[in-house]
Amino acid sequence: MRFRSYRSGKGAGVAVQDGAVWRDLGAVSLIDLIADGSINNAAIAEGKPEIDMAGVTLLPVIPQPPKFICVGLNYVDHAAESPYKDLPTYPAFFPRFNSSLIGHEAPLIRPRASHEFDYECELAVIIGKPARHVSEENALDHVAGYAIFNDGSLRNYQFLSVQWTPGKNFDGTGAFGPDLVTADELPAGGSGLQVQTILNGQVLQNGNTADMIFPVAKLISIASEFTTLETGTVIATGTPAGVGFARKPPIFMKEGDVCEIHVEQLGVLRNEVRNEA
Amino acid sequence: MRFRSYRSGKGAGVAVQDGAVWRDLGAVSLIDLIADGSINNAAIAEGKPEIDMAGVTLLPVIPQPPKFICVGLNYVDHAAESPYKDLPTYPAFFPRFNSSLIGHEAPLIRPRASHEFDYECELAVIIGKPARHVSEENALDHVAGYAIFNDGSLRNYQFLSVQWTPGKNFDGTGAFGPDLVTADELPAGGSGLQVQTILNGQVLQNGNTADMIFPVAKLISIASEFTTLETGTVIATGTPAGVGFARKPPIFMKEGDVCEIHVEQLGVLRNEVRNEA
Repeated sequence: MRFRSYRSGKGAGVAVQDGAVWRDLGAVSLIDLIADGSINNAAIAEGKPEIDMAGVTLLPVIPQPPKFICVGLNYVDHAAESPYKDLPTYPAFFPRFNSSLIGHEAPLIRPRASHEFDYECELAVIIGKPARHVSEENALDHVAGYAIFNDGSLRNYQFLSVQWTPGKNFDGTGAFGPDLVTADELPAGGSGLQVQTILNGQVLQNGNTADMIFPVAKLISIASEFTTLETGTVIATGTPAGVGFARKPPIFMKEGDVCEIHVEQLGVLRNEVRNEA
Repeated sequence: MRFRSYRSGKGAGVAVQDGAVWRDLGAVSLIDLIADGSINNAAIAEGKPEIDMAGVTLLPVIPQPPKFICVGLNYVDHAAESPYKDLPTYPAFFPRFNSSLIGHEAPLIRPRASHEFDYECELAVIIGKPARHVSEENALDHVAGYAIFNDGSLRNYQFLSVQWTPGKNFDGTGAFGPDLVTADELPAGGSGLQVQTILNGQVLQNGNTADMIFPVAKLISIASEFTTLETGTVIATGTPAGVGFARKPPIFMKEGDVCEIHVEQLGVLRNEVRNEA
């Protein structure tokens, strides 16, 4: 099943797809629906009113994750184009703050402070049952579903210090959505899916989630060794080669650009770039 | 004024110091009291019942900060003892997840995964009025108060990749409290305060907040360039020299150790180390 978090004139809510239409589950939080198992209840849409998704604003699909962990350098070809030439032997975990997240069709904000605004297509994993000290073998039992993430990065700010936090956390630079697709609809661990960035119609990244250095089950197991992955925690699994700053000449996003992230079986996450006011 | 967040049999609440006693403000959140200006209302304790702090459990003084940003390598002497020999030209910002935070007198958890459990005494700043694009000159207008932080670090996990996140985020390793002391009671920017780590009675770190490479006003201004610092956001300002892993031989914390962080005018943050169950 597919779920979306939205905001309308009546407040925030969640919608569920029902064939060709969407139905309104009202003022609930998607994290609560994950926690109580509702996202796997096939009857959840029954009797619910239809909702016109064109009439609402989509939020980040999990609007306020308890934590949002990104993984850097998780594809061999991207690690090779990065400033770090050695393949990682442990995932490069870094955070996204919730203030950096936006929904499908919301503007990606190109900040005044930097014009090195880069795209990164990613598969994001959303945790269901809380995980701590989970084995790789059992890790996928803790996945509620998957979504698309665009890990918009200000490259010069990413490398101003040895920690990437600033370049990865400008307000309004991380697009997340549109749908949570439940795990049962996808291959185990979200593996074998094509991931692409298409900027103004041009394919700039074209990878496959089968090529992750640390696949989803391994990421969950490794992260759960140090931190509790609460319901609604997001792990963004890294990006393949083709990012803008590694190109010669570099390609950075500018006002009016349309950045689409395609992930096979998940759909398209689309955002237009707007300069910071 | 001084405030504490606690949990009792009746739930979570906030207490305020009133001379020699503490008074109970009930089931409120300290972030809400910061947001509505109550923490600077001198009459807030009037008519409130006394509360026995020995009968409650202290929480991290801000139990669920919207974000918790740490700063690495912010003292010249500590940067020199670190693996990074060059002085930073921009703060090394990294996150603490809320799941890693504990209160005063709660056990610091030495994990099964690593025994390289190190202490770091720090001054923490708590944001009041939200800050984005704030100048250094105006930055201190956005400070609600200060608290003590022990940035407990698992050193081998900190350096498993180029990002420090895992070593800085084991559950139960970041002690935070006991009090929020309002900014009016301290020197501007919390500058000129002695900060110490005393482990089992032995002084292992002894620095002064006047020696920060990036002082509090500068940290707020720089961070607010990329992210909104919401009410209740915490910035932990880094630690001076003397950490355990830089010593020869190294000193790491083990079960039964008592780690005290002293910050002048703020008090003492005390925690005993316990092995993970």
